[in-house]
Amino acid sequence: MKYLALEGSAVAASCALLEDGRVLGEFFVNIPQTHSQTLLPMVEGLLRTCGTAPAALDFFAVTRGPGSFTGLRIAMAAVKGMAMAAGKPCVGVSTLEALARNLTGFAGSAAAVMDARCGQVYAGLFALKEGRVARYPFGEDAAITIEELREQLDRMEKPVFLVGDGARLCYNRLSEGLAPGAPEEHGIRLAPPHLLYQRAAAVGAAAWDAWERGEAVEAGALVPAYLRLPQAERELKRKQAAQG
Amino acid sequence: MKYLALEGSAVAASCALLEDGRVLGEFFVNIPQTHSQTLLPMVEGLLRTCGTAPAALDFFAVTRGPGSFTGLRIAMAAVKGMAMAAGKPCVGVSTLEALARNLTGFAGSAAAVMDARCGQVYAGLFALKEGRVARYPFGEDAAITIEELREQLDRMEKPVFLVGDGARLCYNRLSEGLAPGAPEEHGIRLAPPHLLYQRAAAVGAAAWDAWERGEAVEAGALVPAYLRLPQAERELKRKQAAQG
Repeated sequence: MKYLALEGSAVAASCALLEDGRVLGEFFVNIPQTHSQTLLPMVEGLLRTCGTAPAALDFFAVTRGPGSFTGLRIAMAAVKGMAMAAGKPCVGVSTLEALARNLTGFAGSAAAVMDARCGQVYAGLFALKEGRVARYPFGEDAAITIEELREQLDRMEKPVFLVGDGARLCYNRLSEGLAPGAPEEHGIRLAPPHLLYQRAAAVGAAAWDAWERGEAVEAGALVPAYLRLPQAERELKRKQAAQG
Repeated sequence: MKYLALEGSAVAASCALLEDGRVLGEFFVNIPQTHSQTLLPMVEGLLRTCGTAPAALDFFAVTRGPGSFTGLRIAMAAVKGMAMAAGKPCVGVSTLEALARNLTGFAGSAAAVMDARCGQVYAGLFALKEGRVARYPFGEDAAITIEELREQLDRMEKPVFLVGDGARLCYNRLSEGLAPGAPEEHGIRLAPPHLLYQRAAAVGAAAWDAWERGEAVEAGALVPAYLRLPQAERELKRKQAAQG
């Protein structure tokens, strides 16, 4: 089974071509540019280099969230477009689960965190054991405060690696709150720099398991998981409540 | 400092754009295609996506070996060509050191191994500690037998992660020789699949340290480190010895 994975949930953008879970190629950039300008040309370059036509793909994978509303929509629209044109199914995976997959092979735990603004982070919590990544029962994707994250870290197998574009933020905020000693002394570590950001190869790894569990859907049924309402809608609701 | 890193020492091929050691983008393929057809178009796609012109680069990095003689020559010729045209220096790094850098952040050791054929592997041996990769005094790049590798593994901090395109070969051969128990019981592990192969991003990480140590050279002074004579030269020498 050959498939394409796309990732556009934050500043970085990437695409990967995989076969049965194995990476055949990956194109990753981490620069402040609009995904609408970068993602599809990257897909084209990747497929051309690998000598693979979109019609030869068996399915299309993408992170369905959480993440930047615009970024998620661009990547998802691209995947839906290709899947519809090729008449092939889609697989959506959690951005946070894909992030944790970067740390496959480590021992301990992964706290995948993204900056959700407004004093919150998007967090998903995973155990890392014997080359596998398994979600903690209390680790479902959610928008939580750093205080809530701190409480959950206490329940996780150490060391806990913070991974994702919110990792540095959390590491610094946790440093302030932990006394005495640095986060390392409490078993909290930053993921290494080359494994810190969302990567389409990891999306592809998570998507392969989802595909094997039978979780593929038609393009029309793929929906984003924002975890929170967009800011515009939150403000509208607040206004309506104030008026009502 | 912005720079480009190229890697073509085996079946996989990749290029990465970095700034002061930080990855801005990476294009990686692991398919059986000639690097002469893939590498430069990949560089072009990467630089275009990142909006960077070759003339804007401060230096060029490449793996100087060990590895496939043809692959190394193609990547090195491409780097020398770009560096000469741009009038910028080059940095050559060990393929095996770059491989070990894939495991930055792990604890224990890395045995970077590539299949050298003729019953040998190219091996470089490194300690992994506190986010750093440091070569063992006895771990210089060399072409050695699996038996010699086994003896060196005994001297290394456990767990030892086998990394590189010779990792599976070594793992399987070590499994036969170790009794009782699997390699894991002796502290020997395979690197996780997404960190198993040569990556230009890791070449770029190693090149940044080399640049800071002042190891940049002019394009003309960059030479491959094959560790062994090419097969044709070995056979010629054997013939000459038989005749002489």
